[in-house]
Amino acid sequence: MKHPVEDIEYAEYLFDRFYSIGSTENGGVTRLGYTEVEDEMHKAFVELGEEKGYKSYTDEVGNTYLYNENCKEDEDGEYYLIGSHLDSVVEGGRYDGVSGIITGLLLLEWARRDGLSIPVRVGAMRCEESSNFGRSTIGSGLITKEVYKHDIGEAMNREGVTLREVFKERGYSLEPRRIQGVKEYIELHIEQGKVLEEYEDTVGIVQTIAGPRRFLVHIKGNAEHSGATPMGMRTDALCAAAEIILEVEEIGKSESLYQSVATVGTVKVGPNALNVIPGEVTLGVDMRGIDSSSLDRMETRLKSACKKICEKRKVKYYREKTSDIPPIGMSADLQQKLLAAAKKLRIPHRSMISGAGHDAMSFANICETAMVFIPCAKGISHNKKEFATIESICDGAKVIYEHFKEEMEE
Amino acid sequence: MKHPVEDIEYAEYLFDRFYSIGSTENGGVTRLGYTEVEDEMHKAFVELGEEKGYKSYTDEVGNTYLYNENCKEDEDGEYYLIGSHLDSVVEGGRYDGVSGIITGLLLLEWARRDGLSIPVRVGAMRCEESSNFGRSTIGSGLITKEVYKHDIGEAMNREGVTLREVFKERGYSLEPRRIQGVKEYIELHIEQGKVLEEYEDTVGIVQTIAGPRRFLVHIKGNAEHSGATPMGMRTDALCAAAEIILEVEEIGKSESLYQSVATVGTVKVGPNALNVIPGEVTLGVDMRGIDSSSLDRMETRLKSACKKICEKRKVKYYREKTSDIPPIGMSADLQQKLLAAAKKLRIPHRSMISGAGHDAMSFANICETAMVFIPCAKGISHNKKEFATIESICDGAKVIYEHFKEEMEE
Repeated sequence: MKHPVEDIEYAEYLFDRFYSIGSTENGGVTRLGYTEVEDEMHKAFVELGEEKGYKSYTDEVGNTYLYNENCKEDEDGEYYLIGSHLDSVVEGGRYDGVSGIITGLLLLEWARRDGLSIPVRVGAMRCEESSNFGRSTIGSGLITKEVYKHDIGEAMNREGVTLREVFKERGYSLEPRRIQGVKEYIELHIEQGKVLEEYEDTVGIVQTIAGPRRFLVHIKGNAEHSGATPMGMRTDALCAAAEIILEVEEIGKSESLYQSVATVGTVKVGPNALNVIPGEVTLGVDMRGIDSSSLDRMETRLKSACKKICEKRKVKYYREKTSDIPPIGMSADLQQKLLAAAKKLRIPHRSMISGAGHDAMSFANICETAMVFIPCAKGISHNKKEFATIESICDGAKVIYEHFKEEMEE
Repeated sequence: MKHPVEDIEYAEYLFDRFYSIGSTENGGVTRLGYTEVEDEMHKAFVELGEEKGYKSYTDEVGNTYLYNENCKEDEDGEYYLIGSHLDSVVEGGRYDGVSGIITGLLLLEWARRDGLSIPVRVGAMRCEESSNFGRSTIGSGLITKEVYKHDIGEAMNREGVTLREVFKERGYSLEPRRIQGVKEYIELHIEQGKVLEEYEDTVGIVQTIAGPRRFLVHIKGNAEHSGATPMGMRTDALCAAAEIILEVEEIGKSESLYQSVATVGTVKVGPNALNVIPGEVTLGVDMRGIDSSSLDRMETRLKSACKKICEKRKVKYYREKTSDIPPIGMSADLQQKLLAAAKKLRIPHRSMISGAGHDAMSFANICETAMVFIPCAKGISHNKKEFATIESICDGAKVIYEHFKEEMEE
């Protein structure tokens, strides 16, 4: 849809304020969760709010919030929470997470301009990406007490420091007070896939968020001299790992019909020297889907593949499940309202699933929760080439704003 | 054979002096070439020589030497050079290289004790292992001007510093004077394989050293979101790499009859995050053999495998040859003399090949060159479990010493 030039200019201004933070040499951004770069992002967010006179605060795990004058202090009373995150993967893009935060600031601005007395908070969640601690949605998971019922204090970042130590240094709490008063949590996010682009739709309303199951597969062979050890006398951990990598791909392909995917995203080889046969390999496996039976089948196949391959090759192995989040449905009622809003605005829209995990997962059990997707070019995300238009962000934000207007008329 | 208790004690004393240098937490040693830890090893070597009154010097690339009073100063006149190295791989063992240096010190000691007026130098070569700069036998290759006829100044260490920069800081020269006066170069080394152990032989006299051919295979796919990218829309660089890893194993197996081996020893994955499909992978491939036609066939098959696999998977790739050292024969005359010495001493012996590369390769074209192998437990090397007995070192050294005695009687 067409947007007033001042909306586009304000959204561009917001985007530009975050642009250079965490920029890398090759054109992407690295804004890992619970690092100084992420702190900078939150600082910019709070400053953007202060420019407009909104109040801000930080919760016990470092998430930051802006809120308008229609909200009461201290999370008393109900309010609409527009959330997303400000961290990124290593060498990631500038739209993942940030688009949702820009949306929140646009909604605050529009409500004020129109005198819409809706209580809105914008929440920037910490460490949504698993790139730093190997765990995702840490900030939102802790304050909703939904995702992380188990202890994640021992999760270790890329520098070998535990979340517990990081929190201690920052004065955060691993057992924060549960967030109060959220009537609805709505998150706008880039799709990170190609569905909207291929169907030429402008917004997607999410039905279900695929649940990630994650595993580390540790493989142990013998680190021997690569020149002096005949082929028949080897137990090469990397060759076993290669078979598992290809099997994980097959597992994902065979469950494609159920919209499941399976990926080996990380590999660690020891000693990783040209003249030594790899003695130890650790693979990081990520499986996602919206169908629990499909996820179960994938897990079972991974289990038997590891056993079969490693026994055949006489290498030892140990499979560790590091994450198991079930597929999470969005609020049916809120989906209907957002679809109706899109229809009213004549914005081409569709219902769809989310293959990626989002902070919305953390909120789904504590309040009405929904997600609005916007297209990103070629579906590329977690990459410097990630791109969405400012117009798309405004389109998605307008759908949420239309819903806000309906809410205030009720 | 049985050795006098003072020989065993002196050899043990020598071994113990090096023991703790570069020790790692898990029981191995890390003594990378051209690092402070390797410097410490050379310092200990020189001190061990000074204790016995031998003179020492360092050449233009950092190799250190001890020599007895039968040698002239400044490499004038001919001498026998007993050489090996003092660096190790990451988490390597304590016998690789060090055994040959202990042998040199034993030979100096025995010659003095017996009043044998043979001119002997012991040379500790720098950076024999490729673990730091991705290039092997740097110290010996530079001073013989045989292996490194091309420029290796741009070779980069694990911290991203070039050999040129390291040499500049240390005051070394990438174009040193060629070593002079070496009549024979003899190197004792642990076998790093299981042949001697299986045949219950005590020493092996090397016929040929297998030539390593090394490659880096760079693979480039698309780094996309691992949750939101359907299996059918992926170009996963790691899955292509996995196929190549298994193909390299097959190539090695199919050339086993020719005593060739092929290994993928290193893997680098980018961005190496659990929620991103691997976009870039670099594999380090090491191929070795004593038969040039077999090596040619392996290289051709690697070439076609990379092409076939990467084209099928629609990933880009670039194959880079980083090393190509032909199989190197040892001196036939010197082999005969050492076999005769072993026979005379009634030490069980055999002729054999060397699968691993050694500093002896650098010397083969400039002087009579030979290698004496001793068994190492289960053939394990480049690993903390590497083990050889002090008696074995004395056995091998005695064979060389017997040859020395024959030389002086001629």
